[in-house]
Order: sequence, then structure tokens, then C-alpha cells
Amino acid sequence: MNNETNVTWHEHRVSREMREKKNGHKGCVIWFTGLSGSGKSTVANTLDHKLYQLGIQTVVLDGDNVRHGLNAGPGMLKGAHGEDFSSRFGLGFSAIDREENIRRIGAVAEIYTQTGVIALTAFISPYRIDRDRVRNTLKDGEFIEIFVDAPLEVCEERDPKGLYKKARAGELKGFTGIDDPYEEPESPELVLLAAEKTPDILADEVIEFLKDKAIINS
Amino acid sequence: MNNETNVTWHEHRVSREMREKKNGHKGCVIWFTGLSGSGKSTVANTLDHKLYQLGIQTVVLDGDNVRHGLNAGPGMLKGAHGEDFSSRFGLGFSAIDREENIRRIGAVAEIYTQTGVIALTAFISPYRIDRDRVRNTLKDGEFIEIFVDAPLEVCEERDPKGLYKKARAGELKGFTGIDDPYEEPESPELVLLAAEKTPDILADEVIEFLKDKAIINS
Repeated sequence: MNNETNVTWHEHRVSREMREKKNGHKGCVIWFTGLSGSGKSTVANTLDHKLYQLGIQTVVLDGDNVRHGLNAGPGMLKGAHGEDFSSRFGLGFSAIDREENIRRIGAVAEIYTQTGVIALTAFISPYRIDRDRVRNTLKDGEFIEIFVDAPLEVCEERDPKGLYKKARAGELKGFTGIDDPYEEPESPELVLLAAEKTPDILADEVIEFLKDKAIINS
Repeated sequence: MNNETNVTWHEHRVSREMREKKNGHKGCVIWFTGLSGSGKSTVANTLDHKLYQLGIQTVVLDGDNVRHGLNAGPGMLKGAHGEDFSSRFGLGFSAIDREENIRRIGAVAEIYTQTGVIALTAFISPYRIDRDRVRNTLKDGEFIEIFVDAPLEVCEERDPKGLYKKARAGELKGFTGIDDPYEEPESPELVLLAAEKTPDILADEVIEFLKDKAIINS
């Protein structure tokens, strides 16, 4: 902990290990990926609630808390100094914007991990290369990729936000599963069969995984 | 907590209030602002360590964990899909880039606040308008602006990173306090006299403030 050349600074730093010891568990990223309507958010929030009851420090990153702030769209950002701020940094839904969207979420999840928290993310994140890039910012075992696997037909039937209907009607372009690809994970840490089991059971499967890996206590 | 129209989802959501109750304190942003060398990082980390010892959930956001990930520079970002990703989203030191730098940090601090954590930020953040914009994303009382007040002469004498020397030699352009303005807060929640008191005493002043405002327990 101590650094002879810069004692004043380093003797007061709270390390990740100190935070993890206090929290009683390790920090990591649980990255849910899957089609719209597959159940990512529901499983993430169900898991979050169970972890909360176990006294574990968590955060859920999803569209609700990211798309209005950190990754707001071009029309939602107001530049303070009057430059063309919004169009430069605001994120839409083009491939490059989606890439930056996932990159920023990954960076925030990484900060949470470094502070001993379990970060649950619930985004379609359809491209393998974007997910792998987040994985590469973390140490082995810290990025837990979970494929929330439900057939397109099931997701489209559920259509909780009416987005598939809009996509089929041509009102939404580039919608994952309809006219934009979803790339399934090649070797995810876990696959959840989200058309066959309840969110409660799926969340328990994740908890078992976390115990097996000694991220949380058995 | 329950929402009759969407029970499955909402009954499992962990609210901010639930997290704050478990943590035993409220979430907020403690935004340190001041010249390079004023002591922002040292005070923030000293405070962080004291809060840690009080069992409080915190994060420190500073150049160390932000400039290499979330707000990496143009040369540090690698686009996954091969577009001109780095130059679009990478952040340098122009006014617009500094604005986006502070905006993203504010957005992350806001997420921490929403999850019942005390986020300490230590950035020069020289422009009033940028700091006020972060303040406006938060509720009254959640943004605690702390002016780490030390005269330029003292900061330049300390010059812990040798940046003033470089700025005086013309090797660094647009350096705050030398050839770029620092706008002092007009009504900060707290002013710390960082040339007169030790980091230990200054951190205690912040703790007294947090107790007075019932953000942490007395």
C-alpha cells in the first residue's frame, strides 16, 4: 500500500482489496446480452434484488439510467459553450454510435468493478467484437458474459415495448433480429434458457455460478 | 414499490431508498474543484479513506480511472468496426472536449448517487457552466461543490506533476491558471483553505458538513 516516493498520497488510498474485504465479496461485471424481449432486464433486476438481500453491493446499468445521461442522444445534449456539442458527442443508433454506447457502459462497469461492486448490465449488445472489447478491459474471470437465450419468435411474441411491431412495420430501422444481426456469444460464461424458465430460477443459476467462482460467499 | 400494470418487473427493482437504508447513509456527489496542485486528489483520497473507515460506500473518480477508460484520448481508443472512431469520440483538451469530459464524469457520479453511493470527484473543472450543468442533473442538496482554494503561487510552487513548469515553458498550451482561466465557484457548499491546513483537517471539515446535512450519521 505504501509508496516511499509519494507517501502522503498513497497512504490514504483505499484499494480495491480493502473495499472487497469490507463488502465481503469481489467486484465483477455480469454482462447480460440477448435480443430485445429476451428478458435481460427482468433477470438482471431479479438477480439484483436477490444479491441485495444477500447484502451484496451492486448496480444495474440499463437503458433507464444510461440513455438519458451518460449516453444521451444528439437531441438530448445541450452544449454549455455553444459549440456543435450535441451532434458530436450525442449517441444515436448507427454502428459507430452503438459501439461507443457499449464502450462507455463497459468503462463505467469497469470502474464499479474496481471499487468492489458487482455491475449488472442489460443491453442487447448485439456485436461480438464490442462485447469482447469490454471483456479485454477486465482481468480473467471479472467479465461474466451471460447469453439470455430466447428464440426470436418468443421475443417478438412478448414484444414488451412494441418495438418488433414497429420494426416489422418499417417504422424502426436497423432493429436487432429483424434487419440487423444479433451475434450470439461463442463461449459465454453462462447461457440462460429464458423461454423455458422463470426469472427467479434464472437468477438463482447466476448466483450458483457466482458462488462456484468464489465471487460471493457460499 | 409495486406497480399494478407491470408487476413482474417492478416488484424486483431495488430502489435507491432501499440501497441507502442498507448502506446507512445517503448518496451524493462531492465535487472538488480547484487549480492543479491545489490538493483536490489528496483531500478526496484522505476523505475517502475516512469515509471507508466509517463504513460508508464511496467511489473516487479522478484522472487515474477516467482518462484511460471512459474518457480516453483520441489516440487511445481503438474502433472495433474500423471507422474513424477514435477522432470522433476520443477526448482531448479543447474547450468542447473538456466540456464532454466533465459531462461524462458528472453522469457517472449521478449514477453512483442513484445507487446510494457517495461519489468523490477530483478534477480541475475550471468552468462554472460545466460544473453547474452537473449540479442541474441532481436534486437539491445532492451536489456538494467544494472549492479547494490555494493561491496559484502555492500550486505552482508545489507543481507535483511538473505541469506548471511545462506550461511556463510553453510546452503545454491552455493550462488552467497560466493561459486558461479558472472560474472560482460563486456559491460553493464549502471552501477548503488548502494552503493553510492539512488534508487531514480539510477532510474532517467535509465530514462535519456531511453530518450537518444528515447525509451521513453523526
